[in-house]
Amino acid sequence: MSNVPFDGAKLNNLLEQAGIDAVLATSRHNVRYLTGGYYDHFHALAPRGGSGQYEALVGIPRGRLDAAFYVGGGSERRQLSSMPIWIDAVDLAGGSTTRSAQAAATLLRSRVSDTATIGIEFPFTPADAFVALQHELPRARLVDATDALHELRAIKTDEELRVLRSVADSVAESIVAGFRAGHDGVTTNSLSAVVAHQMADRRVEFLWSFTCAGPSYLRAPSSMTWDQGQVLHLDCGGEIGDYLADICRMGCRGEPSTLARDLHAECLQLQNEIRRFIRPGTPYQELAAEGEKALRQLPHGNVGRFVAHGIGMVSHEQPMISASSARPLEAGMVLSVETEFLEPSVGHIKIEDVVAVTPDGYEGMGDLGREWQISD
Amino acid sequence: MSNVPFDGAKLNNLLEQAGIDAVLATSRHNVRYLTGGYYDHFHALAPRGGSGQYEALVGIPRGRLDAAFYVGGGSERRQLSSMPIWIDAVDLAGGSTTRSAQAAATLLRSRVSDTATIGIEFPFTPADAFVALQHELPRARLVDATDALHELRAIKTDEELRVLRSVADSVAESIVAGFRAGHDGVTTNSLSAVVAHQMADRRVEFLWSFTCAGPSYLRAPSSMTWDQGQVLHLDCGGEIGDYLADICRMGCRGEPSTLARDLHAECLQLQNEIRRFIRPGTPYQELAAEGEKALRQLPHGNVGRFVAHGIGMVSHEQPMISASSARPLEAGMVLSVETEFLEPSVGHIKIEDVVAVTPDGYEGMGDLGREWQISD
Repeated sequence: MSNVPFDGAKLNNLLEQAGIDAVLATSRHNVRYLTGGYYDHFHALAPRGGSGQYEALVGIPRGRLDAAFYVGGGSERRQLSSMPIWIDAVDLAGGSTTRSAQAAATLLRSRVSDTATIGIEFPFTPADAFVALQHELPRARLVDATDALHELRAIKTDEELRVLRSVADSVAESIVAGFRAGHDGVTTNSLSAVVAHQMADRRVEFLWSFTCAGPSYLRAPSSMTWDQGQVLHLDCGGEIGDYLADICRMGCRGEPSTLARDLHAECLQLQNEIRRFIRPGTPYQELAAEGEKALRQLPHGNVGRFVAHGIGMVSHEQPMISASSARPLEAGMVLSVETEFLEPSVGHIKIEDVVAVTPDGYEGMGDLGREWQISD
Repeated sequence: MSNVPFDGAKLNNLLEQAGIDAVLATSRHNVRYLTGGYYDHFHALAPRGGSGQYEALVGIPRGRLDAAFYVGGGSERRQLSSMPIWIDAVDLAGGSTTRSAQAAATLLRSRVSDTATIGIEFPFTPADAFVALQHELPRARLVDATDALHELRAIKTDEELRVLRSVADSVAESIVAGFRAGHDGVTTNSLSAVVAHQMADRRVEFLWSFTCAGPSYLRAPSSMTWDQGQVLHLDCGGEIGDYLADICRMGCRGEPSTLARDLHAECLQLQNEIRRFIRPGTPYQELAAEGEKALRQLPHGNVGRFVAHGIGMVSHEQPMISASSARPLEAGMVLSVETEFLEPSVGHIKIEDVVAVTPDGYEGMGDLGREWQISD
């Protein structure tokens, strides 16, 4: 055991607070987080096969990182040899949902008492794996550990920040390239395909493209065309190894109208002003309140919306900004910050940025292209 | 209710045979299959969010297509309006795993008796959705319907064959382009990235790339270089709307050795010979036996392997070819057919094709590039 890639003491505290004796992670992102980036390359994007699906598991008894285990399938042997993980106990007799659960249960029986409380990821554990765990560990108590794992990931390491910066830059570049593909008759389907292509070119996996042209709120790629004089937003997500960025930029074919320009300027004004509150120590509720206050002071604040939420391996994670939380921001947290206006005569105007909390303040990640992207 | 996109009578028969009163599909591919291609674009590639994940459901009471229902999230309203589905009852109060399960339970209560047998997809239903269903439908019996849905998809429609042909062509083209990127110092990581990029260019979602260079069996993209004189295989998967192709082609930097040429020629010989058994009426076991027989007759058959398996929305689906099944092939089934040799002095030589069963025989889909792809 060496090079544990996460804060082991923090995990122990979180499990202690939740009364969990051992955690069993099953989601792709948490398996990657706990292994330090490893996932079976064959199943990372294609989990289904036959009548079932692939399942990998990482188990960690509380306070005993040395007793951690990984369960995967037999076909992973060579990949694991070439990219070794920090976990000593590797069992490749799993692979399918039930086989992986059975292998994990056997490993747990030799590590914790038969009446232990086992924390699983309820929304990410397949029902047949859950039933197998219940059957194999009849006296154990199965509880949800999703929030503990969620909290474990709240503060990003320098390496995680490096990946998030790279993803944000690549997503912003891909969006800007998408706008450049504007021409007569172009559809939001084909603009989204350009963004996906640009992401692949940068080794980023495309996740989604919210987009709509002109005075419409559809926000899904479609056969809708982007016509002269119409605004268009590209609000796109992409990821590398489960680390994602979510960015929105505005474009127009020809010159935007005065109202469109005003709304975009108000987005930028709020997005820029709020950044001075993004620093260690700002309570979540202060950030939310300052965003609301700044929005109300804008000329079109009544048709606007301001939102900030954490982003990292999941699109809404810590910091979970809300008006009711006094928890302070910490260096290493990363935010998605969004301002948008829905104006029937113009359409949907929105800017969304990725902003990290640094020891001294903030860092805008992927800030490219926040100005109007004008297409012929 | 109109334009039911699947064979409703077949579904009824399958549910009747399995003693299922209503089926509840939760996997992305079966939701797409039963809706006729619809899935929330935001969550198709990014299901996770917050502490949970997105879940869509399609419910169909046996023999009552008119009582089918779809459960999704509130943000899908505009997308569903612009791409209407055949199902009349659409409930967008779901979205998360438990909310979708609760909404589905309410819809089921008004459609089937409280002691009904409900068929769910056990490997694809999240544990918290399963627990919610148990709680909301305490007298219902929850059984596995995965195999019934698997069987429902066995015979492809002309439209499905059109999509599979297009995916197979695009995957083969992307692989051929990958070989062309060979140069001194190129790694299997970067060759796989080229294949992914080429797929994105063709609006195909990259799934995996098994690859290794020279005398190695790693089969995962890595920092391994592809050097002069070494063979390399690219065994790659890609999909469009959950329809996938899985194709393997061979390349060499410079001229392959005589042994490499012989092994590749034996792959092609077997792959070509077996096609005459791919026609309606051939029992699965005959196809398996003829493949084995042809392999044994090859000079290097002792280090070779022949496999055939169904492919469509899942990489191993009907026809599930085995030595013990007398079930006959039918027109509209689609096969993945693979021959490979592991020879320590050469490496991994493999050809894998997508072959559809037609009324008269077979159709090779994506047959591009089966000859050696020579790179400088």
